[in-house]
Amino acid sequence: MAENKVKFLPNEIEVSCDSGTNLLELAADAGVELKAVCGGAGSCGKCQVIVKEGEVNKLDQGNLSPDKLSQGYVLACKTEITSDVVIEIPPESRLSKHQILVEDDEDFLTEEELQIAEEVELSPIYKRLELELSEPSLVDNASDLERLYTEINRDIELPPLITPLSVLNELADHLRENDWKTQVSLTALNGNYEVSELISPDDENPDYGIAVDIGTTTLALDLVDLSTGQTVVSEGAYNKQANYGDDVIGRINFVTENEGGLERLHQAVIKSINELIDKAINKQGIEYSDIKTAVFAGNTTMSHLFLGIDPNNIRLDPYIPTANFIPPLKANELGINIKEEAWIHYLPGVASFVGGDITAGVLATELSNQESITLFIDIGTNGELVLGNQDWLMTCSCSAGPAFEGGGIEYGMRAMSGAIEYFGIDEETYEIKYSTIDDVPPIGICGSGLINLIATLNEVGIISRSGKFNEDLEHGRLRDREYEKEFLLVPKEEAGINEDIVITENDIKNLLRSKGAIYAGIRMMLKNMSLTEEFIEQVLVAGGFGNYINLDDAKKIGLLPDLPADRFKFVGNTSLKGAKKSLLSQEAFEQVNEIAKKMTYLELSAEDQSHAFTDEFVSAQFLPHTDLSLFPSVAG
Amino acid sequence: MAENKVKFLPNEIEVSCDSGTNLLELAADAGVELKAVCGGAGSCGKCQVIVKEGEVNKLDQGNLSPDKLSQGYVLACKTEITSDVVIEIPPESRLSKHQILVEDDEDFLTEEELQIAEEVELSPIYKRLELELSEPSLVDNASDLERLYTEINRDIELPPLITPLSVLNELADHLRENDWKTQVSLTALNGNYEVSELISPDDENPDYGIAVDIGTTTLALDLVDLSTGQTVVSEGAYNKQANYGDDVIGRINFVTENEGGLERLHQAVIKSINELIDKAINKQGIEYSDIKTAVFAGNTTMSHLFLGIDPNNIRLDPYIPTANFIPPLKANELGINIKEEAWIHYLPGVASFVGGDITAGVLATELSNQESITLFIDIGTNGELVLGNQDWLMTCSCSAGPAFEGGGIEYGMRAMSGAIEYFGIDEETYEIKYSTIDDVPPIGICGSGLINLIATLNEVGIISRSGKFNEDLEHGRLRDREYEKEFLLVPKEEAGINEDIVITENDIKNLLRSKGAIYAGIRMMLKNMSLTEEFIEQVLVAGGFGNYINLDDAKKIGLLPDLPADRFKFVGNTSLKGAKKSLLSQEAFEQVNEIAKKMTYLELSAEDQSHAFTDEFVSAQFLPHTDLSLFPSVAG
Repeated sequence: MAENKVKFLPNEIEVSCDSGTNLLELAADAGVELKAVCGGAGSCGKCQVIVKEGEVNKLDQGNLSPDKLSQGYVLACKTEITSDVVIEIPPESRLSKHQILVEDDEDFLTEEELQIAEEVELSPIYKRLELELSEPSLVDNASDLERLYTEINRDIELPPLITPLSVLNELADHLRENDWKTQVSLTALNGNYEVSELISPDDENPDYGIAVDIGTTTLALDLVDLSTGQTVVSEGAYNKQANYGDDVIGRINFVTENEGGLERLHQAVIKSINELIDKAINKQGIEYSDIKTAVFAGNTTMSHLFLGIDPNNIRLDPYIPTANFIPPLKANELGINIKEEAWIHYLPGVASFVGGDITAGVLATELSNQESITLFIDIGTNGELVLGNQDWLMTCSCSAGPAFEGGGIEYGMRAMSGAIEYFGIDEETYEIKYSTIDDVPPIGICGSGLINLIATLNEVGIISRSGKFNEDLEHGRLRDREYEKEFLLVPKEEAGINEDIVITENDIKNLLRSKGAIYAGIRMMLKNMSLTEEFIEQVLVAGGFGNYINLDDAKKIGLLPDLPADRFKFVGNTSLKGAKKSLLSQEAFEQVNEIAKKMTYLELSAEDQSHAFTDEFVSAQFLPHTDLSLFPSVAG
Repeated sequence: MAENKVKFLPNEIEVSCDSGTNLLELAADAGVELKAVCGGAGSCGKCQVIVKEGEVNKLDQGNLSPDKLSQGYVLACKTEITSDVVIEIPPESRLSKHQILVEDDEDFLTEEELQIAEEVELSPIYKRLELELSEPSLVDNASDLERLYTEINRDIELPPLITPLSVLNELADHLRENDWKTQVSLTALNGNYEVSELISPDDENPDYGIAVDIGTTTLALDLVDLSTGQTVVSEGAYNKQANYGDDVIGRINFVTENEGGLERLHQAVIKSINELIDKAINKQGIEYSDIKTAVFAGNTTMSHLFLGIDPNNIRLDPYIPTANFIPPLKANELGINIKEEAWIHYLPGVASFVGGDITAGVLATELSNQESITLFIDIGTNGELVLGNQDWLMTCSCSAGPAFEGGGIEYGMRAMSGAIEYFGIDEETYEIKYSTIDDVPPIGICGSGLINLIATLNEVGIISRSGKFNEDLEHGRLRDREYEKEFLLVPKEEAGINEDIVITENDIKNLLRSKGAIYAGIRMMLKNMSLTEEFIEQVLVAGGFGNYINLDDAKKIGLLPDLPADRFKFVGNTSLKGAKKSLLSQEAFEQVNEIAKKMTYLELSAEDQSHAFTDEFVSAQFLPHTDLSLFPSVAG
């Protein structure tokens, strides 16, 4: 096994590896983040790289064109290193930084969102008490621990107290050295209170906690001062798991198909989190040990991978997770770099495809405390919905697929630099104007751009309500390709990549499937509650994606229900907000568990639902819908 | 630091060490068990060894006589190795095997004791449930963990269930591989039930637990089949801490005065326990992992050293332990070689000198469930007493000192081979007959021998009621020595050591102090409850010591109250029995916590007690007492 030198361009990252090493995995280890929607299966074709120098062993190169092959392109996931090589990562294969929604991006936050963040009454799940104990004597000779317990319970009788050995070990000296004055911190734990730490009586340093949203694609972290409830640092980053698959199914496939895959994905997210923590503590000038507790929220696959539990059954009928309610764990048990003995909490989920990110969303938005019937939509890779109010809560997941994140769309991409987010098409000439994120030459189309594009293509008559290209249209932009047609959006000369940017009939079909799945999910929940769209008094659109989409476009394509604009709110990253709220409020922490227990999960593939769902799904794949009466403002 | 070779005789144990290594510590590390009553302070003079070859560095050799020094004797605790040496351990310095009271020594058990051991209704603190779960489906899609919880709670609603990550990790595969049948084990823990282990549905191997009495001098372990409640192996051994001090104060001194002393003592007891476990599992032919839980009982100093907590404040006025109620701990956290994730419980104590061994004793004897007023006496190094019945419990510790274990008595020793346990003295000639354990030449006198000796010396008029030698007595056996008199018991020629075995006035004084302290403690408890001796309906004498003493002798010297013989029971090792009972019965486990909470601790050195105690103590140092009306059968 000879050692080979590998240089990645353009960033000139150099690493060594044994012969036979998989190029995609090597890149991931080297911190070179490649797109790999299919998790290294060779099917998505997104991880294309160019071998500039040296020889490699090419396995099945899938649908890579002979033209590209001749230019030195290979699929990284199907390439093994056999010599010293130089590898260029073309822009379209790169996962580059983009706006990850973190809470202090006030530009992106509406007033309602800021209110949501403020609404917590401060009673953090890790709380500090100042105590002054009576000094023991021959006639008052309770043990140090009993004396401490008595004082903790003086004002209010708490649940039974427990104390770990590490604290017991320090207790005697701590009390005597500090003249029987102390500060102790308490953590609520399985119905008990743990004496988590002994703190010098004159210590005035704040305790910190972190709230973390573990998204399939991105992570967001808030470093929170537990004494004030304020977020002092917000950080966002890619989930390093993205190297092993774009969506949760891709990740699960990676685990199933690769020996050690579970450990790789587990370590990838832990590493992602630890890097965020490093950034946050450096900005704030504090130590790992100053972070005393953490609350995580994420979907169910993310919870399993975070814990290192095999997520395989999530993917297999009947889609059963190992656990929805995750027991608290020690930071050092998971390798999360905060105080070693700190407790880590993961917010509870409801089902395999409705996780702690959604219960966090319900908590953050107060959905379950309101009289009005509210629809909560989180359009990410999957598409989770909640419908309900203070009396009832229903939830479903609608397998929307990753189309709105660029998955399955030939020139689809995430909302990052170079992504087209808006199209203007001249009704007569079909001349196209567009704008891109960061105003750089376009390399693809992000979700909001795709929604806008479909709405516009339909509006100007290029595609029909069923998503087919207008048969009668004759224009140079509409071109034949193998098996289907494509429409030219940006010619190679204008693009930031060496290709024409086009949209294909198949792309449109995928987008209509995605939006159709979401709308059909909404319809199914309404139906199960014997309600119709008009009963929805409020629509909350969560997730980073929501902040960029144009409401009118979304209604035009039939993604969102045709309700007055004032019923919609874009509520941002409610997963992160819910995690933070749980961190800052014991009551909220308990409430989110109640929410998870209370939610009725509607399994759309169950026998009593699947026929109706199929009907709804078929109808919803039209623009905006087969039943135009559902979209009066669009139809009218 | 040159390497030196050290050979210990007579067992020819050879080790190497750096120059400057302390000989006592080296011996301990080499498994050569030496007496060291004072914990290596150089004051007790018990760790005498003979340097047969080579040079050593002698520090202050204390009261070692010039004669002995010239013969090559040194105090091991005050000797450093500086060259290759051969060290002989004389018999009187050796800790040799002796009868350690373990439960299957049926010879030593009365019928009452055997009954006590049987009385438990089996409901172990680690229990196994056989379960058959319904298979999940799209319409019954609870997570694996919720499904398991539902089944566990089907027949009886348990406290909230918790599950460690290690079990979560196995859950999905375990359930599916076993076709949704399983056995789970549950452990009660801080008001929750933990799902501790997933077991194959057809596994019929029994679960085992261990009950361990951690005595200051000896350890006793019962390996118990939790499915039957039967002890399958009993093992006993010395506490390896004995190398560092004979009594708890010696141990605490060792911790305070030696860097790393706490860790040494902690490791010594852990090692002692692990060796017992090794013996037990080898006899039973099982693995460490078959032992699923453990209950320990011992005094408060032992609990601190077991946990690695500094016991220093136990020794210092006002004698405050760090904790009486010890939280459950994981076996691997302490390094106890049973199932790694097994929970370890240490029975709760009451005060610095009334520990879990005493609450275990109250539990085992059912003292707190009876109408009749019972006195419980555990005469070990210390002397702990409990007085009470089902309505009230009082306890005290009476600093008896280690005289009855041979401490502070020139030729005192523990009850091991060569110890004199009985004397017969001719009233006229003062000829002495004696018997020794194992019928070998005598090397010292054990506790029961000492009680018998004092009673006999007084009876034949050699000592007065105040413990002084009869001034008028002229006999070759009564000899002058520096500052005091001694009485020859066994001449050198008959002895197993190269010395006369004698008893000195000072020895007698120490014994009278010891017995006086215990009797004064009994009087103080009675006084505080406004009771007198006659109200004591039952006297339970616990501990290995109790099994060898002669009841009449004990009354004659005023150690035990002068009550009819049928009120006395020798109840054996109730610390071990209580631990076993707690292991086998969740109810008993909870009861022992109630016992510890309920017991009133009488601090004899507190201001409101100390004058009265001093009076009682002085009066009780006579034979049998200044107030002969308390001992009518003796006086009569």
